[in-house]
Amino acid sequence: MKKVGIVDTTFSRFDMAGAVMDELNQLCVAKFERRTVPGIKDIPVEAKSLLEGGCDIVIALGMPGAEPIDKQCAHEASLGLIWAQLMTNKHIIEVFVHADEARNEKELAELAENRAKEHARNVYRLLFRPDDLRKMAGTGQREGAPDAGPLRR
Amino acid sequence: MKKVGIVDTTFSRFDMAGAVMDELNQLCVAKFERRTVPGIKDIPVEAKSLLEGGCDIVIALGMPGAEPIDKQCAHEASLGLIWAQLMTNKHIIEVFVHADEARNEKELAELAENRAKEHARNVYRLLFRPDDLRKMAGTGQREGAPDAGPLRR
Amino acid sequence: MKKVGIVDTTFSRFDMAGAVMDELNQLCVAKFERRTVPGIKDIPVEAKSLLEGGCDIVIALGMPGAEPIDKQCAHEASLGLIWAQLMTNKHIIEVFVHADEARNEKELAELAENRAKEHARNVYRLLFRPDDLRKMAGTGQREGAPDAGPLRR
Amino acid sequence: MKKVGIVDTTFSRFDMAGAVMDELNQLCVAKFERRTVPGIKDIPVEAKSLLEGGCDIVIALGMPGAEPIDKQCAHEASLGLIWAQLMTNKHIIEVFVHADEARNEKELAELAENRAKEHARNVYRLLFRPDDLRKMAGTGQREGAPDAGPLRR
Amino acid sequence: MKKVGIVDTTFSRFDMAGAVMDELNQLCVAKFERRTVPGIKDIPVEAKSLLEGGCDIVIALGMPGAEPIDKQCAHEASLGLIWAQLMTNKHIIEVFVHADEARNEKELAELAENRAKEHARNVYRLLFRPDDLRKMAGTGQREGAPDAGPLRR
Repeated sequence: MKKVGIVDTTFSRFDMAGAVMDELNQLCVAKFERRTVPGIKDIPVEAKSLLEGGCDIVIALGMPGAEPIDKQCAHEASLGLIWAQLMTNKHIIEVFVHADEARNEKELAELAENRAKEHARNVYRLLFRPDDLRKMAGTGQREGAPDAGPLRR
Repeated sequence: MKKVGIVDTTFSRFDMAGAVMDELNQLCVAKFERRTVPGIKDIPVEAKSLLEGGCDIVIALGMPGAEPIDKQCAHEASLGLIWAQLMTNKHIIEVFVHADEARNEKELAELAENRAKEHARNVYRLLFRPDDLRKMAGTGQREGAPDAGPLRR
Repeated sequence: MKKVGIVDTTFSRFDMAGAVMDELNQLCVAKFERRTVPGIKDIPVEAKSLLEGGCDIVIALGMPGAEPIDKQCAHEASLGLIWAQLMTNKHIIEVFVHADEARNEKELAELAENRAKEHARNVYRLLFRPDDLRKMAGTGQREGAPDAGPLRR
Repeated sequence: MKKVGIVDTTFSRFDMAGAVMDELNQLCVAKFERRTVPGIKDIPVEAKSLLEGGCDIVIALGMPGAEPIDKQCAHEASLGLIWAQLMTNKHIIEVFVHADEARNEKELAELAENRAKEHARNVYRLLFRPDDLRKMAGTGQREGAPDAGPLRR
Repeated sequence: MKKVGIVDTTFSRFDMAGAVMDELNQLCVAKFERRTVPGIKDIPVEAKSLLEGGCDIVIALGMPGAEPIDKQCAHEASLGLIWAQLMTNKHIIEVFVHADEARNEKELAELAENRAKEHARNVYRLLFRPDDLRKMAGTGQREGAPDAGPLRR
């Protein structure tokens, strides 16, 4: 059985890990290992540690704030996640929801929940259904928002 | 026979992989390995994995959106692709088409198709015709757009 | 007994290391190793050296200035801290207080003290109480400022 | 005899490699290995490969465009060149000429030629005349443009 | 006896290496190894080479220009210096003086000289007097400019 690592933060304002576990449980991927760290810049080393400790993939859940410094932190964390993947040869699916992506707290919570669930399905596909991803190539998928769809020629 | 890895995304709105394979098939480079990942930041580790699994070169196909966050994701992915190359000593040809490079969906699709095909020819040249590239040095080639040509003195 | 590394700077205008040690002493984490370097860009290698020399975690204390060049230095230091973590598989908790985060010197000093102490508690939790962090996941914690709290749906 | 690697691009609009070879031939550094790649982001891995394949130094020739995306590509390539150097412990002399550094094509071509030639002399000095560089330290050298000269106190 | 590596550039408009050596000679740190490279982006690999060749620490001296491209080069060089430190576990003290930090050439030369000398003392402290640095922690030191001092509460 494959094991999915989940890393989330105390900084985040929504329990995205719960949404991920709900979704993966429905898909019968039952084995998780979850770690919580203070902020998004603490995620990369935790994710790497999970991947080296037996997880096949990690889902990284963060909710950066709306200020320029928050954007910079998210950028640094993203680079760290890419390095961690290259050092372990495994995927880390980044699910970041920026505080300024929605108009109010209710919409932001919905966005966070939906994006987390849709990316949980991506984790499932990467592990068990690579052909499903191949069929979706170039179709303009958007996690947590309406899909853009393929270009109309 | 050389093997070409292809990595594309479900985020992209055009099947650039199809265009690449058409072009490479015409050039009789018949052996491919294709992987689809959710977004461009998932490409670097997948490309590295292909290169370490026997591919001689990888072509990385992405279509970042038009927002600042999309530009940042593309930047992060590009850095990841450069690291992956340095870690494997093999080329990854990045073919990114930005959503704001064309005026409408039709033109964007044409740009994506043309750039993908022209870069497929670059892949072919890197593998089999390095002398052709040498002859084209300094001639202002532009993939998917009219060539700039050499400077007029 | 776990050992906590502390790295601070002569550039900083507040003794955050004192605040960290006060807090950790109250939590009975008595074993420290402290190093002071000139500026924040000197922290990453010092932190890595502490982690490789037996520390279980490092807390990195910096106070970047308000100018664009200071922001850039902080960005570079942050990236270095992420690399150092990935190279050692241990956490470095970054506590940076930007000179323009407060309206005057008094408030800046309070912010620095509070953020340092709150992150000292994060260090404690990462070492000894990972379950406490898990319970705080998604609750909008903010170190040195009022917590944002969970999103209201 | 030392061997100089040269990497240039088909994107560039001027044959800087020719200028480099002319200059190095005059300085009697006769042994070259030249590779051409499509764009500047393809240079780092090619340069690393040359350095690991026996070249003592590489000169990297690129001509980024004038758009923000071109600046970003140049930035990414520059970072890649620095990593490649740190991984091989050898120098890669970057010669990038930005399309917006001159007022017209004629001036841009002259700039490209002059900068390439002046950096070819830097390559020669790094390989054979480190003392010449030491004497030039702090003298405000500018490749392809009038030297700034030492500060007047 | 400890050995201090010095790397400077021909691009710089002031002989900061001279100032460093004067200062370190007064402090009786007599053993140097000095290398001059063309520009700041050439410093990281040279510094790494010195550290791996026996130097205990390196001081990196650069004077980036005032244009955006110069700022970007400095950023890239700074990242390279951080990587080089993490790869060698030794300090590289970066002394960059930006061309737009002073109002005229005379002031810029004074700034360069003072900053180089003050950082030479930091090098000395890191090698021989870590306790002195510890006492200066949080005191708002500024190299080449009046110290900011500790925050007034």
